[in-house]
Amino acid sequence: MDSVIGVNLPEQSYQIAVVAGGLDDLGVWMSRLKLGKKVLVVSNPVIFKKYGERTLAALKLVGYEVSTCTLPAGERYKTLKSVQKIYDVALENRLERSSTVVALGGGVVGDMAGFAAATWLRGINVVQVPTSLLAMVDSSVGGKTGVNHPQGKNLIGAFYQPKFVLIDPSVLKTLPPREFRAGMAEVIKYGIIWDAELFDKLEAAKRLDQLRYVDEELLSLILARSCQAKADVVGKDEKEAGLRAILNYGHTIGHAVESLTGYKLVNHGEAVAIGMVAAGQIAVQLKMWKSEEAQRQDALIEKTGLPTQLPSGLDIDAIVDSLQTDKKVKDGKVRFILPTQIGAVTITDQVPADVIRQVLRQMQVS
Amino acid sequence: MDSVIGVNLPEQSYQIAVVAGGLDDLGVWMSRLKLGKKVLVVSNPVIFKKYGERTLAALKLVGYEVSTCTLPAGERYKTLKSVQKIYDVALENRLERSSTVVALGGGVVGDMAGFAAATWLRGINVVQVPTSLLAMVDSSVGGKTGVNHPQGKNLIGAFYQPKFVLIDPSVLKTLPPREFRAGMAEVIKYGIIWDAELFDKLEAAKRLDQLRYVDEELLSLILARSCQAKADVVGKDEKEAGLRAILNYGHTIGHAVESLTGYKLVNHGEAVAIGMVAAGQIAVQLKMWKSEEAQRQDALIEKTGLPTQLPSGLDIDAIVDSLQTDKKVKDGKVRFILPTQIGAVTITDQVPADVIRQVLRQMQVS
Ligand SMILES: NC(=O)c1ccc[n+]([C@@H]2O[C@H](COP(=O)([O-])OP(=O)(O)OC[C@H]3O[C@@H](n4cnc5c(N)ncnc54)[C@H](O)[C@@H]3O)[C@@H](O)[C@H]2O)c1
Ligand SMILES: NC(=O)c1ccc[n+]([C@@H]2O[C@H](COP(=O)([O-])OP(=O)(O)OC[C@H]3O[C@@H](n4cnc5c(N)ncnc54)[C@H](O)[C@@H]3O)[C@@H](O)[C@H]2O)c1
Ligand SMILES: [Zn+2]
Ligand SMILES: [Zn+2]
Repeated sequence: MDSVIGVNLPEQSYQIAVVAGGLDDLGVWMSRLKLGKKVLVVSNPVIFKKYGERTLAALKLVGYEVSTCTLPAGERYKTLKSVQKIYDVALENRLERSSTVVALGGGVVGDMAGFAAATWLRGINVVQVPTSLLAMVDSSVGGKTGVNHPQGKNLIGAFYQPKFVLIDPSVLKTLPPREFRAGMAEVIKYGIIWDAELFDKLEAAKRLDQLRYVDEELLSLILARSCQAKADVVGKDEKEAGLRAILNYGHTIGHAVESLTGYKLVNHGEAVAIGMVAAGQIAVQLKMWKSEEAQRQDALIEKTGLPTQLPSGLDIDAIVDSLQTDKKVKDGKVRFILPTQIGAVTITDQVPADVIRQVLRQMQVS
Repeated sequence: MDSVIGVNLPEQSYQIAVVAGGLDDLGVWMSRLKLGKKVLVVSNPVIFKKYGERTLAALKLVGYEVSTCTLPAGERYKTLKSVQKIYDVALENRLERSSTVVALGGGVVGDMAGFAAATWLRGINVVQVPTSLLAMVDSSVGGKTGVNHPQGKNLIGAFYQPKFVLIDPSVLKTLPPREFRAGMAEVIKYGIIWDAELFDKLEAAKRLDQLRYVDEELLSLILARSCQAKADVVGKDEKEAGLRAILNYGHTIGHAVESLTGYKLVNHGEAVAIGMVAAGQIAVQLKMWKSEEAQRQDALIEKTGLPTQLPSGLDIDAIVDSLQTDKKVKDGKVRFILPTQIGAVTITDQVPADVIRQVLRQMQVS
């Protein structure tokens, strides 16, 4: 089943296509958009080795003049310096306003390639071809692009929408299992904050971490619904004025856990999983959410192979302190996204610190 | 006479205030905009020495928390490296989404501060306080921001609109005379492409280069009409789809002259002056423009103290070749903006190369 999701924004609308094997048709999809003839493919060496040749072939097939730029893999290379490398290749190949950057990779590649496209000649086209689950359901949708500052993640960036997003679920077969599970945390998030039916489907699926090998059909459906959820939210609030904050469900405590463990021990998806368990428990404590539903959430997280407890040794006071320094803090108040039922959340900055502590204590490994 | 010009864009509208002595009221103007309490003033040492104290006082007067960042003066410091310095100061002072960058300076400061604001936290507020004539009538209006790539000017940047522009004509008194004349080239440009009445006023004024000392009233009027002209054009075409190209009147050959003289011998305004003379002559040759009107243009340029002839030693073939590599070339065809009457231009890519050569030959110093 192929799906095409429309993302409708005031200034620009674009489509997300979810098509198994679609990578080989990338050029054909793009040729409908009447872009200029020059394309710069940005990737990393690992991904380019696996999918570069097919991508180039698909682009050349329809007559694009293609150049490539591979950047070192890994979050620590998500820097202005890497973006400068993209600029250099763009200049070398005389990219024009009508030219297109194709981001072939996970969120790291997508964020950098998107930012380079946003800022080269004050904005050239970008097409996202996400290859990690997280990039498919999260980073490639919504138009956030950017890089890290030595002292903080994603501090430098721009809102810049792609012209098109092509999701080929079959490339997920080569994604390392831990990365796949990490992406699943965001999928579960959409089930809780927006799409109860998606949640039900995830709950009903048997081997969630094996999906990409055994049930491409269901996987495609899950990808499409996840993108739809994010597109719905972003479409209602492109520039983060309000609603978009619900996408941070699980991320308040998640970010604290991530940063306190040095972004290594616990990855982003795992941290979000922990954060969702915590937020769910807080909502239960505040009598905003039924405890049975919270249990269903936690069971789904566990089935996916994601953590539901804090990493051992993590200090609860350190977590609570860290919440205060988060980007999302407004006037010193920590903002939480809390479920009220599966498929719906509310935003509040009225969570007492002792409730947070109590919930976190329950989540310590015994 | 104070003027307030409204710039109306689909996504955001803002005002340009032209107020003699207005610098001291900067804070009061800004406080109407309901911005966050943190302000970062970006400037260069020369300008900051002259106007920094007054600017800081005006901001503190209404309660802003102000930090500053001065960057080395000069086009060659319009780089990502300088922008990174702004990022560092932004981080140090914990600027938030609601915070504001105030650009106090010429086009170099304005372009960098604007780009830093466009990309810090994916966009914080920027207020332009242009101090050079060129920045007042050109770079601070229209939302183009950016920096140079080692191999090309303004290749890296973003379209990003300010929240407010404050023009205080009295700061022009300290602008070096050659910089003042350079800015006048853009003013004359608006007269030719858009505002015949502005042209008449310039023609009627006696001592154009002395205006800032002797007739602040007329100067204010000229500033306001110039900004209005640019705002009109930009308002009709924010992202350079079509009409905005007319702002490049005089810039086609101007850019070639600038780049061939290494951006030193001839400055931007002088090159534009030369380019306008050339474009005018081309239009006359092609029987699109009355020769008497072209003569009026050239006389006004001369009265301003701007050049009307090519710098000696400049090779005509080199100019014609250089036109081909310009950013604005489309499908190998050089695009010219040609006057049809004072106050109106047309865009064409149908200028025969031998007409260009012939006109340039006439403009060689004999
Ligand atoms: N822009 C946004 O809205 C947004 C949202 C969420 C996250 N992000 C950003 O996304 C980044 C994380 O993205 P990510 O999790 O994709 O990380 P990533 O890009 O580093 O990819 C994870 C790893 O998987 C590898 N990989 C990717 N696809 C593969 C495939 N098909 N086969 C084999 N290996 C593959 C990559 O080489 C990498 O080693 C972070 O920088 C984060 O800030 C951005
Ligand atoms: N963003 C745009 O739309 C746009 C349009 C045109 C030009 N530009 C850019 O603008 C830049 C040129 O701007 P510029 O001509 O203002 O150059 P500039 O910023 O270098 O200023 C010129 C000189 O005048 C000095 N100066 C400025 N104001 C002064 C004052 N009041 N008193 C004393 N000295 C003063 C500066 O220190 C500098 O030495 C270029 O980088 C160009 O690319 C941008
Ligand atoms: Zn996330
Ligand atoms: Zn100019």
